[in-house]
Amino acid sequence: MEKYALIVAGGSGIRMGTSLPKQFLQLGHQPVLLHTVARFLEAYADLHMVLVLPPAYIEKGRELVQSMPGAGNCAFTPGGETRFHSVKKGLQFIPEGAVCFVHDAVRCLVSAGLIRRCFETAAEKGNAVPAISPADSMRFQTESGQFQPLDRSKVRLIQTPQTFHSTVLKKAFDQPYDPGFTDEASVVEKAGVPIHLIEGEPTNLKITTPLDLLVAEQLLAKR
Amino acid sequence: MEKYALIVAGGSGIRMGTSLPKQFLQLGHQPVLLHTVARFLEAYADLHMVLVLPPAYIEKGRELVQSMPGAGNCAFTPGGETRFHSVKKGLQFIPEGAVCFVHDAVRCLVSAGLIRRCFETAAEKGNAVPAISPADSMRFQTESGQFQPLDRSKVRLIQTPQTFHSTVLKKAFDQPYDPGFTDEASVVEKAGVPIHLIEGEPTNLKITTPLDLLVAEQLLAKR
Repeated sequence: MEKYALIVAGGSGIRMGTSLPKQFLQLGHQPVLLHTVARFLEAYADLHMVLVLPPAYIEKGRELVQSMPGAGNCAFTPGGETRFHSVKKGLQFIPEGAVCFVHDAVRCLVSAGLIRRCFETAAEKGNAVPAISPADSMRFQTESGQFQPLDRSKVRLIQTPQTFHSTVLKKAFDQPYDPGFTDEASVVEKAGVPIHLIEGEPTNLKITTPLDLLVAEQLLAKR
Repeated sequence: MEKYALIVAGGSGIRMGTSLPKQFLQLGHQPVLLHTVARFLEAYADLHMVLVLPPAYIEKGRELVQSMPGAGNCAFTPGGETRFHSVKKGLQFIPEGAVCFVHDAVRCLVSAGLIRRCFETAAEKGNAVPAISPADSMRFQTESGQFQPLDRSKVRLIQTPQTFHSTVLKKAFDQPYDPGFTDEASVVEKAGVPIHLIEGEPTNLKITTPLDLLVAEQLLAKR
């Protein structure tokens, strides 16, 4: 079964306080984005890739990725208005009958092992979404505006790569946009398909703040 | 108004994979617990402290804390079966008519500024519980066992110091134990008192895994 990684990097780095989008920030010896690409190639050397980038950064992304050995199978497309629109644009490059990973470009510490587990579950059950249990107590705002305790043993923090049969994913993305579409799982679920959570990784961080970048540097240094 | 910090360190370090409870692990030049104590003394030099420790570590804790300049006003007590029972034991040392901070010993990066904001809100409104917004998408397990999307804009991650008028806190802890008592706010709320959330700090980490300890080392080095 062919494998496609749709790597989404629409973010503009506002929370990072830098002008450069966070996927281009340097982490160790290379930009965040190249770490992410390298992880997928480590999991599956024959993987195809589609990179969704901010329109102004397409050329920079192309130059960076094409300098990597083994990153030949890569298409590039500018992102859209929301995550949904960005993924929809990327899906144009992905055929039916494949397995498609949709991954945050800034989750650059994902392990090859997690990528492979996502593939295996998606190949068997139709999809796989990695998730971890939270460490903190939580509260949830009710309609009255009050924050009530939330049973954290029932909460999962959702990660990527969210992994699907591409035929199912492409069909789900034919739905009209809904503001409730916060990730790909929510789009597929709205199309009537149950989602399979699998165990994610605490180190599969989303790099959105300078603190996250610092942590990622430490984790990389330890590997 | 007198101030008491009830510092709770019941944990046994299972998730850390060490035999030493995590509040005694070395972080920079001193154990985690002493960083925590130092933060409270930095906020209020005239603060009283009650430390709740695992029974086998009372003497070690006493030796460590009593070696600190300014940490004279400190009582020690062994923890109980659950968080609720540990806090209840500590409350025996705290008079009515004070403000009481209840704090996780392993949140050793709390700032003096947050401690002071907790005090000011609790002095004015009766209590203050710091909380931050989550960065991840979430799902919540419904009664059918399925995980449904949860609107993360309505979720808050709860931190400590959870801060209360001691009279209200002590009265709330006279209630019989309930497994729903996951933190002090849930106990006080069950007694009919509304909880006031205030903005917490992303760096106010709870050190529960080796990754957290690594992050804390980096944050300390940057200060």
